[in-house]
Amino acid sequence: MALILAINAGSSSLKFQLLDMPAEHLVTKGSVERIGLSDSIFTISVNGEKQQEVSSISDHEVAVRILLDKLTELKIVRSLKEIEGIGHRVVHGGETFADSALVTDDVIKKIEDLSDLAPLHNPANLVGIRAFREVLPNVPEVVVFDTAFHQSMGNESYLYSLPYDYYRKFGIRKYGFHGTSHKYVAFRAAELLGRPIEQLRLISCHLGNGASITAVQGGKSVDTSMGFTPLAGLTMGTRSGDIDPALIPYIMDKTGMNATEVINVLNKKSGLLGLSGFSSDLRDIEKEARRGNKRAKLAIEVFVERIQKYIGSYAAKMSGVDAIIFTAGIGEHSSMVRARVLKGLQFMGIDWDSEQNKINGKEVYLSRPNSPIKVLVIPTNEEVMIARDTVRLSRRHHVLLDEADVNARASND
Amino acid sequence: MALILAINAGSSSLKFQLLDMPAEHLVTKGSVERIGLSDSIFTISVNGEKQQEVSSISDHEVAVRILLDKLTELKIVRSLKEIEGIGHRVVHGGETFADSALVTDDVIKKIEDLSDLAPLHNPANLVGIRAFREVLPNVPEVVVFDTAFHQSMGNESYLYSLPYDYYRKFGIRKYGFHGTSHKYVAFRAAELLGRPIEQLRLISCHLGNGASITAVQGGKSVDTSMGFTPLAGLTMGTRSGDIDPALIPYIMDKTGMNATEVINVLNKKSGLLGLSGFSSDLRDIEKEARRGNKRAKLAIEVFVERIQKYIGSYAAKMSGVDAIIFTAGIGEHSSMVRARVLKGLQFMGIDWDSEQNKINGKEVYLSRPNSPIKVLVIPTNEEVMIARDTVRLSRRHHVLLDEADVNARASND
Repeated sequence: MALILAINAGSSSLKFQLLDMPAEHLVTKGSVERIGLSDSIFTISVNGEKQQEVSSISDHEVAVRILLDKLTELKIVRSLKEIEGIGHRVVHGGETFADSALVTDDVIKKIEDLSDLAPLHNPANLVGIRAFREVLPNVPEVVVFDTAFHQSMGNESYLYSLPYDYYRKFGIRKYGFHGTSHKYVAFRAAELLGRPIEQLRLISCHLGNGASITAVQGGKSVDTSMGFTPLAGLTMGTRSGDIDPALIPYIMDKTGMNATEVINVLNKKSGLLGLSGFSSDLRDIEKEARRGNKRAKLAIEVFVERIQKYIGSYAAKMSGVDAIIFTAGIGEHSSMVRARVLKGLQFMGIDWDSEQNKINGKEVYLSRPNSPIKVLVIPTNEEVMIARDTVRLSRRHHVLLDEADVNARASND
Repeated sequence: MALILAINAGSSSLKFQLLDMPAEHLVTKGSVERIGLSDSIFTISVNGEKQQEVSSISDHEVAVRILLDKLTELKIVRSLKEIEGIGHRVVHGGETFADSALVTDDVIKKIEDLSDLAPLHNPANLVGIRAFREVLPNVPEVVVFDTAFHQSMGNESYLYSLPYDYYRKFGIRKYGFHGTSHKYVAFRAAELLGRPIEQLRLISCHLGNGASITAVQGGKSVDTSMGFTPLAGLTMGTRSGDIDPALIPYIMDKTGMNATEVINVLNKKSGLLGLSGFSSDLRDIEKEARRGNKRAKLAIEVFVERIQKYIGSYAAKMSGVDAIIFTAGIGEHSSMVRARVLKGLQFMGIDWDSEQNKINGKEVYLSRPNSPIKVLVIPTNEEVMIARDTVRLSRRHHVLLDEADVNARASND
């Protein structure tokens, strides 16, 4: 077996999936939560059943040791040597990383340097990377960035209409996020469509608690709805998406909050939660809307309207669209949202099947065979993307090691 | 002659047009600038020639008196009694005004109450209204709001995805601006197309130093790119349009400015000026771009890209579009911008004629006769709209006066 661990480390958590590659088979998954507290929770799936243990896990390094011990103890792996690579999700790769990268001291330094752009995420991701370096120093680690796929955007797309120096001096531009997911579903769509991705114009709708839409032309992201941060773009669970920027000082003035506090409200108390007044979870809102709750209906209408407008704008951007993809929690599971979005877009050349649209949570065509624009639901799988890149770049690691070995032997000659 | 004065009053200026109605013939126009300073400038066109006088004009009331004296002195009017109404542009009508209104004490009070939403503009507009009330107390005055046309938007369009209380308590929503212009060109387009406006889906692109795009369905604004303030939406001469709101605290942190100062940069140092680094005027930027200036080219690319995306999003919003209209300075005069915008949108069903597109500054079809989507250039005329509404509502004034007269006589009986 060639096993790859796909890791998503937060400041007090560490989620993992163990994948068998190249089969892309999920061996196990789980998480360590509340790291640093006395009641840390370790969860792991064994033969489809969840096992949970509560104990004090002081830091990420301890969490990694416990995880690896468990893998052997539960006989999920025979030996840790079966783990051939560790892939880490990293939120922000800035303009430095247009692709995943093999972890080296230099790469770690660069991720640190980008922490200014993602102060909550990059340092937490690094903690996970360092913990594995400590515990499994000989296993190659790879970093996979949420932003990397969007580095192909042209400057007419990624630049804001701000003083140009803000870009040069402060790195202010659109970066985009969810790149790993958008890339996965875009390439999977090309496979399902049986067409070379180089010829396709795709619009990928990643609709989860966080939500973004990406225009993928020829396999490359050419525009995306999130911006400098994941706050911009669509209405999300708790995030406002796009608003008039002049509202920030107005809200400050009206509420007495400072700018950071206002942005906090925009990130955590807005979106579906702000509009509905009771939940950030679309499932709750759908339920209440069916019972006639007006604010719930309104939240859905706003949510759908923003999605339609972004799809329209990206069709214009690419001078047309070949397929639209729905993914992530809402995209994969809400027939209602998909139906509403598609109803308004039939004029574009979308002939869809409302029966097919009742299917949730798996790969399915919503468009009828002769529809000029295809519509697909594709469950996203960021961990598989991380594992694929880890395999690809680990090879480079082994090549480097071999070269180092050859050089070492040569210099010994 | 039935003469109507169309007035646009700023804090230190007063622009006027005198129109002969219902012919909609422009009799004269001009302005008073630097009101309150020792070197105020009064300008008026007489038989197409500009006359200018510099003197001390202490306030708007004096400005109005000088204007009216000039009209008789220059024999533009025989008597001030020929002036049957005065129409004022007012920036913000909030949710109070979905149409123009005859000025009464109550209307003035309401415009005052809305000053919080337009602190720079509404008070200045009121100064103009009061000056005419003082000098011509018997002539009906009418107020025409930039926001009124957009009051037909649905709440799924005008609400931001913010805590709902922000709307209820603070009036935070999308209002939209340039309404008088969008309405004028939309109704004019219906005339030119020879179709009832009730059946049309129009996208009106008002591209001037300020710029906005409106989706007009059945003669009603259903969405528009400006927002709570005129900062939102497209890239403009000096305004940023849409940006990630999280950038405000980031820019504050990087530059040491406060939130209001940042918004000031977004309003005055951004847009084409910020991107190009040398001018907010598209004519200058076009010239430099032809000479190979990269930042000038970039500014044009960003400007065009945002327009295309808004057009695409509004086509999606209305499930299609029958005609696209270009108006205002750039829309009427930049063949280059129109050509670039249209090139990317041909896929929608736009067949346009690049020869026709060389015509600037007048009403012209850019689309070929069989183009599924029509494209028109229509020079905007906000003053004619103001004059029309002034005539319409002045009649109500006279009816009210007559009724008052009848009542007075009745009570005297």
